[in-house]
Amino acid sequence: MKTQETLNIKAVTIRDGFWSPVQQLVMETVIPYQYDVMDDKVEGMDKSHAIENFRVAAGKAEGEFRGMVFQDSDLAKWLEAAAYALALKEDAALEEKADGLIALIEQAQEPDGYLNTYFTLKEPGHKWQNLAECHELYCAGHMMEAAVAYRQATGKDRFLSVMRKNADLICARFGTGEGQVRGVPGHQEVELGLLRMYEATGEKRYLDTALYFINERGRTPEVLSGEIKNRGWFHWSREQEPSYNQRHLPVREQKDAAGHSVRAVYMVTAMAELAALTEDRELADACGNLWRSIVDRRMYITGGVGSTVHGEAFSSDYELPNDLAYAETCASIGMAFFARRMLELCPKGEYADILEKELYNGILSGMQMDGKRFFYVNPLETVPNVSGVLPEYRHALPRRPEWYGCACCPPNLARLIASLGQYAWGESEKGIYAHIYLGGQARFSKAGGITVDCESGYPWKGDVRYTVRPKNENVSFFFAVHIPGWCGRWMVTVNGKEEKTIPRDGYAYIDRIWRNGDVVDVHLEMEPVRMYANANVRAAAGCVALTRGPVVYCFEETDNGGGLAALRLPRGSALVCKPGSIANSGVYLIETEGVRIPSTNSLYSAGLPEGEPVTLRAVPYYAWSNRQSGGMRVWMVEGS
Amino acid sequence: MKTQETLNIKAVTIRDGFWSPVQQLVMETVIPYQYDVMDDKVEGMDKSHAIENFRVAAGKAEGEFRGMVFQDSDLAKWLEAAAYALALKEDAALEEKADGLIALIEQAQEPDGYLNTYFTLKEPGHKWQNLAECHELYCAGHMMEAAVAYRQATGKDRFLSVMRKNADLICARFGTGEGQVRGVPGHQEVELGLLRMYEATGEKRYLDTALYFINERGRTPEVLSGEIKNRGWFHWSREQEPSYNQRHLPVREQKDAAGHSVRAVYMVTAMAELAALTEDRELADACGNLWRSIVDRRMYITGGVGSTVHGEAFSSDYELPNDLAYAETCASIGMAFFARRMLELCPKGEYADILEKELYNGILSGMQMDGKRFFYVNPLETVPNVSGVLPEYRHALPRRPEWYGCACCPPNLARLIASLGQYAWGESEKGIYAHIYLGGQARFSKAGGITVDCESGYPWKGDVRYTVRPKNENVSFFFAVHIPGWCGRWMVTVNGKEEKTIPRDGYAYIDRIWRNGDVVDVHLEMEPVRMYANANVRAAAGCVALTRGPVVYCFEETDNGGGLAALRLPRGSALVCKPGSIANSGVYLIETEGVRIPSTNSLYSAGLPEGEPVTLRAVPYYAWSNRQSGGMRVWMVEGS
Repeated sequence: MKTQETLNIKAVTIRDGFWSPVQQLVMETVIPYQYDVMDDKVEGMDKSHAIENFRVAAGKAEGEFRGMVFQDSDLAKWLEAAAYALALKEDAALEEKADGLIALIEQAQEPDGYLNTYFTLKEPGHKWQNLAECHELYCAGHMMEAAVAYRQATGKDRFLSVMRKNADLICARFGTGEGQVRGVPGHQEVELGLLRMYEATGEKRYLDTALYFINERGRTPEVLSGEIKNRGWFHWSREQEPSYNQRHLPVREQKDAAGHSVRAVYMVTAMAELAALTEDRELADACGNLWRSIVDRRMYITGGVGSTVHGEAFSSDYELPNDLAYAETCASIGMAFFARRMLELCPKGEYADILEKELYNGILSGMQMDGKRFFYVNPLETVPNVSGVLPEYRHALPRRPEWYGCACCPPNLARLIASLGQYAWGESEKGIYAHIYLGGQARFSKAGGITVDCESGYPWKGDVRYTVRPKNENVSFFFAVHIPGWCGRWMVTVNGKEEKTIPRDGYAYIDRIWRNGDVVDVHLEMEPVRMYANANVRAAAGCVALTRGPVVYCFEETDNGGGLAALRLPRGSALVCKPGSIANSGVYLIETEGVRIPSTNSLYSAGLPEGEPVTLRAVPYYAWSNRQSGGMRVWMVEGS
Repeated sequence: MKTQETLNIKAVTIRDGFWSPVQQLVMETVIPYQYDVMDDKVEGMDKSHAIENFRVAAGKAEGEFRGMVFQDSDLAKWLEAAAYALALKEDAALEEKADGLIALIEQAQEPDGYLNTYFTLKEPGHKWQNLAECHELYCAGHMMEAAVAYRQATGKDRFLSVMRKNADLICARFGTGEGQVRGVPGHQEVELGLLRMYEATGEKRYLDTALYFINERGRTPEVLSGEIKNRGWFHWSREQEPSYNQRHLPVREQKDAAGHSVRAVYMVTAMAELAALTEDRELADACGNLWRSIVDRRMYITGGVGSTVHGEAFSSDYELPNDLAYAETCASIGMAFFARRMLELCPKGEYADILEKELYNGILSGMQMDGKRFFYVNPLETVPNVSGVLPEYRHALPRRPEWYGCACCPPNLARLIASLGQYAWGESEKGIYAHIYLGGQARFSKAGGITVDCESGYPWKGDVRYTVRPKNENVSFFFAVHIPGWCGRWMVTVNGKEEKTIPRDGYAYIDRIWRNGDVVDVHLEMEPVRMYANANVRAAAGCVALTRGPVVYCFEETDNGGGLAALRLPRGSALVCKPGSIANSGVYLIETEGVRIPSTNSLYSAGLPEGEPVTLRAVPYYAWSNRQSGGMRVWMVEGS
């Protein structure tokens, strides 16, 4: 049922005007800085202890475990990001650091394959007893993902061997077979790790156990509650709602995205991958239902998901408050994972649309443009002295905070951005896919080998050029190029001649006999657009948002003055696109004539004061809070 | 500095088309029901134990204290409401019940005058040690208010004598004199009680101690913190922010209304009364500052104050979320107290405007129209499956709950409504005032005695007739009638002839020689009005609210269908006023032509779907949630 594979990271080279500088930032700033954080080398920051925990567990240092119960996962995500960075560019010093950590991990592993420094050091008698709260399987999943990435990037087997021992232990322990324990992870992730392990090793038990964890979840809602009741000890001391970790229903019966958003999107990602690998139509349908729930009813225009801080969770349909939003960066990253796996199941443009939306908005907004500060929470409106200050808005910071001692979003961002090549291209039995526009080169194995070069000024310019180079002469295959859903008028030419292709499911299929050097040009009309939310979204009622191409815009106080709620964007005023710069990075701005309603002395009055004309300027949402701090809003009141 | 006195409850008779039925409801339903609640006679309700605590403390029953630390205040508020009810109408059975409670109170009082069943029964060793949390002074204040009201209503002294002993104990204990303890109440109220005691007895030490508590607050911010630190035992176990109980600054330096809203408005009420009684200009100015802070920047259009559930507190300027609103009924009641005392300081129309706003909106909305259920929290927007359901909205119930075992708002509402006569009229050296329109009769002592009869169809009709009957012939005084701030066109006639009076500070002063039977007619043009919030109020940006006279309107799902956020009220559409009925009570509705934006399949789209014409119907806010449950909103998106 898997219709195509996205490409291995080694098969893609990226030379993209937009993304290459971001990758460079990740390689030169984020990954080295995170290592120093994990190694407690950053002055003035709470000690992470993430590496020290492994040193202690490995017998290389004296001390005790410190940090969160899932502190090991920081190391894992860093190693995964480092692996992708090494795949992008050789770096002996980085590889040495990574090898050093891997050696520590090997030494910290217990003889039976168990690997978790929290339990090894702090509560050795409590292993596997608190799946609900204690993240052993979560950390293991991240380690597995890292091990597979590291093998792919470097060809080295050591880390993978360590994680095989660990995966074997987990597969032996959990399941419905004789002597096995029934259980599900409190935080989904090991399913993804096991699927990576299956991909790397072909061991079917890894696939089976991933499927077991998915099928078991919610089938017996008591599986974690019972554990909690019988255990007699607590880590966090209170039980979450079953929906918090998606165990309120069997996963195949879940129609609404619910609970902790990162858990939910990691789960559906694994479900989509399993549906493809096991040709499980029911599971694919369940993924489709949850996709619809998220994309049609529970997602911000920026791609943010999980609209409430309470449980960092999905809320009700259409409940998308701008100022209270949680919209965790990691949840948007998980949505990119989900979209990638949905694309593999079925190449529909809407999956690529959401992938693109997440990359250019909800994900990228997580990182300051110097790579030094990170948003976990991505609100769509901030207000001075309110956001980050008043109790209900304390999570919705107006400025990216510095790295925390325990970090989830920054390393997650690092691994996603460093592995971007895996998301851009696909290969099926009969053809090749360009899911998102990414400058550089992709190397396909199809038809004896095909190289496609891509030049693109995306997301600022709508012209994309592909040069197709099959190794063999006169081979026939289709080249399917995603036509973004945001684009109303577009044209595809092949060697300069218009291709009257009818797009199917959001892709223009160019099916022909290809010659070396054939040129496919895609021309997308890219103008600023007024976007409106569904009438059920009360937080956007009467408001308009601006987009251009895949980029969502916002209005910042630094451009528009304070009191953004007093501004009105008239329905008819022309939207003018202008090149500009934020934090030394080129962007396109949108300017338009609007009005500002003057403030009066009285709080309420009969009659609205006449608005004063003002020029409104919008900047890309991902670039917000990179200049002077102040209010921000994505949804602007329409009116005059 | 006190410019006038509002009238004693016995000097006013109420025969008002609007308020008399509400008072009847309070007398026939609310007060008897509350007695049964306090006496644990209501099936299926958590036991209040409020009376039983006194029985046990009086040695009349065996048992222990149960309920909140301020459970005694329920009894006090009930007795105060009962007193006002007895002033309105003789009722031997009610008086017998009240006398019974008063006897219990007397017997529960300790020999030194101490009166608090919680400490007497449960923690006798901890008296007066936890002013921050434990409400001894709060309960005492309510008991004093009740005792004075009961003496005014019945002429009986017993309760007052009990409370004199208690007040003497408090005055002896707290202050800056030798052997006295410095301290301030954690919840302001005793200041008001002591002022009532001063009014009833003329004992200056009651005035002095009330002033001491006001002056002491915030002067030494550590007064409660130090107590907490030294005490070594806790009741609620964590210290609140100093602003929670307004001890962050000396009260005279406070410019912004802050912290727990009921505490704040009780405090400023006492401050205003003290400023008048002691001719303290600085204190009056402080009241003025806090009035401006509330009325100009921190009040809902309904009169609701305290916009956040966190600490049931005032929030920042212009932070007035509709759906998250706290806007406690008791805080609106406190605003009526504050407005009354500000009127006594200075007869400005804006004080009467707010008094009127509170009565017809924020206060009255607290009670279901059958007198059986009560809102503590008065949101301006409710959404099905969100309000009262999602974690951040759990406090904002869409339907009035039944009485709680421990109730603050219902008895507070009862005592306010039963004593309404005290708010309507004023008497100064040179004249008399009508602050709000209240049908019935007021009896003034001025000029040898004046009776004024008032007939009014208010708030539905703008015609009010006063018949002035001085006892003596040809006496000269002014009659000042409040001209509401909402009214743009009005006329006053005397004996049918237009009075070309120029209003001063919101009052039409008719200064003449009066004859028995002179008729003053006030004609107010009363049309539906579109109201707009200050441009800084982001929760009302792009929205319009409807009012008519003093009544604020809202849109309910039961009239307008679900999905109220999809409705738009065009700026130009005519507002039509129609008589109607809610819960068998006559009201005026407002109808207008609006549009409904249809819901689309997609969550976001370029271009807004064409709106479909619909008739919008608005009903008085105070009457919301008296029919089928469903969404509600006060602020409607303006647009087409």
